[in-house]
Amino acid sequence: MKAIAVRRGETEPVVVEKPRPEPEPGEALVRTLVVGVDGTDHEVISGAHGAFPDGEDHLVLGHEAVGVVEDPGDTDLSAGDVVVPTVRRPVPGESNEFFERGEPDMAPGGQYVERGIEGGHGFMAEYFTSPAEYLVPLPEELASVGFLVEPISISEKAIEHARASRSAFDWRPESALVLGNGSLGLLTLAMLGESYDRTYCLGRRDRPDPTIDVIEELGATYVDSRQTPVSEVPDAYEAMDFVYEATGYPPHAFGAIEALAPNGVAALLGVPEPWEFEVDGGTLHRELVLGNKALVGSVNSNLRQFEAAVETLATLPAWFLDALVTGVYDLDSFEGAFAPGETTIKAAVKFDEYEKR
Amino acid sequence: MKAIAVRRGETEPVVVEKPRPEPEPGEALVRTLVVGVDGTDHEVISGAHGAFPDGEDHLVLGHEAVGVVEDPGDTDLSAGDVVVPTVRRPVPGESNEFFERGEPDMAPGGQYVERGIEGGHGFMAEYFTSPAEYLVPLPEELASVGFLVEPISISEKAIEHARASRSAFDWRPESALVLGNGSLGLLTLAMLGESYDRTYCLGRRDRPDPTIDVIEELGATYVDSRQTPVSEVPDAYEAMDFVYEATGYPPHAFGAIEALAPNGVAALLGVPEPWEFEVDGGTLHRELVLGNKALVGSVNSNLRQFEAAVETLATLPAWFLDALVTGVYDLDSFEGAFAPGETTIKAAVKFDEYEKR
Repeated sequence: MKAIAVRRGETEPVVVEKPRPEPEPGEALVRTLVVGVDGTDHEVISGAHGAFPDGEDHLVLGHEAVGVVEDPGDTDLSAGDVVVPTVRRPVPGESNEFFERGEPDMAPGGQYVERGIEGGHGFMAEYFTSPAEYLVPLPEELASVGFLVEPISISEKAIEHARASRSAFDWRPESALVLGNGSLGLLTLAMLGESYDRTYCLGRRDRPDPTIDVIEELGATYVDSRQTPVSEVPDAYEAMDFVYEATGYPPHAFGAIEALAPNGVAALLGVPEPWEFEVDGGTLHRELVLGNKALVGSVNSNLRQFEAAVETLATLPAWFLDALVTGVYDLDSFEGAFAPGETTIKAAVKFDEYEKR
Repeated sequence: MKAIAVRRGETEPVVVEKPRPEPEPGEALVRTLVVGVDGTDHEVISGAHGAFPDGEDHLVLGHEAVGVVEDPGDTDLSAGDVVVPTVRRPVPGESNEFFERGEPDMAPGGQYVERGIEGGHGFMAEYFTSPAEYLVPLPEELASVGFLVEPISISEKAIEHARASRSAFDWRPESALVLGNGSLGLLTLAMLGESYDRTYCLGRRDRPDPTIDVIEELGATYVDSRQTPVSEVPDAYEAMDFVYEATGYPPHAFGAIEALAPNGVAALLGVPEPWEFEVDGGTLHRELVLGNKALVGSVNSNLRQFEAAVETLATLPAWFLDALVTGVYDLDSFEGAFAPGETTIKAAVKFDEYEKR
């Protein structure tokens, strides 16, 4: 079968030929439909993040997948079931308490592999196998957009953890700001529209721009970070009850403290490199304390959050998904899904067409 | 009656003569027993924090009080009840949603006064009045140490908010680090001993020192910040599941992110002044995200947390309270309670002796 991989020493994805995997006991064989591409894939390809599987000369890419059960093996799944795989798996032969409790997203580094990212082959192949416990069923009408379940699950977790941090009192948030107008930012903005009276999304682009169009069609306000730094958002717009950071730009993480309203919380999701800079640490510390504010870091997601993401995906309007997914490329033109483009929001690689049962 | 106050334009507390207050409907008259002194009092006296009541030329100090109901007025209290007053009150004539929900601790600046601190007279007087709803009953056997209820309630809130931030997953903390070996730090260290297998307390003092003795008698490990900066605690000792910051030293707030174990949380309580300095913001941001870590600011406390503090106070061992309270000064030598001293941990002013009913 064909797979899209990055080879050791290379920094471009290529199509490789691999044997079709055989399901082990407890595993199903899944025929891949579509696999999304995100910023993490680009970091993996460039070598900035992730790791090759032990002893392998290549890493099959892809962690945002949807597929159809081809062979359920000895599992409770049925052939034809549409499924989304989760990403974190135990280090081979080394399960641990986090997996046993169903919270691999909380496992510290070294206590997991991530398929398509760190130490485990991903899903950008015509077929993959997976233990059934890591396959989340999806209604078949969502098959074509099921590759969005994984990124949505990332935000489900971050929003859940941020809300939990405010659960010791009667929090009544009204305003939310998403930092970053990439595909994760826009997905999150659409999710937050249900819960917040007023939503904002920060980017650094000139009009006309398709992401600004999406922001405004969602009823949100576009904030241009070149005119309004994050810390000045309260003066220019309003103080925010919730800030969701999806940029990996560390000054935004610190600026978020000043963007927050009293009792607000910022969820941080970006993964920057080391970078020393000056902050008014005294004022930030004081603001956190006197404002009862919180910063909550969040990475990855668990099965429960994938299941919540399936429900969320079903609520997102068709126009939004159409606007968000700017390119789905067949295997013979897969490079398009990895090419930067001014009008690209979310790209994916299609391995097979879903045919209704 | 006599009261201890700071006058406008002065930076030393003095005894002033004031009329004994008359309880309004819904209020009780309380005869003051003991009032504690903390760092906030010193900031109020120096003018660094707080505000005089509107139209007044002085501020009666004191927000950590215990007293006895002298005249219950039309309230459900009885003469002789031992009570602890809460600190935040509505701005006169202006109640708001935070007070209505019983969460004045979450009210933003401007939506409250704080007795003895900001805009309202405190409890360092022979008598004070208070609406009964802001008086927390105390068992009479705790009367002599009831002035510790307020500081304990501050930590009850901070610990509750920190735990809430970890409630979206199965958090199993084992190690806790208290930053600061002042009276609030030591009280919190004693509180945490019940819930954590291993506790640590950071200070910057040489042995022999009474706070180090208390730390070690509590079974905790003393960490000297001059030898081990907060960020190096994981290498020197272990990564911490919980960090409690009570120093107001902003580099500690940032260092706490590196002191935390994966999935850990730091509660911040200090209130520093503005101070610009350099941080590795990229690494801190990345650590928060990849480690699922949180920072939670916390200020003040509500009635429920005062009630929890009463229960906590009853569990603290007598030897600890004896060691913590290094001086209780009569009104005619009250200056001693405000004087710095190498061996001072917690000082208080006694207005009257409690006599058992």
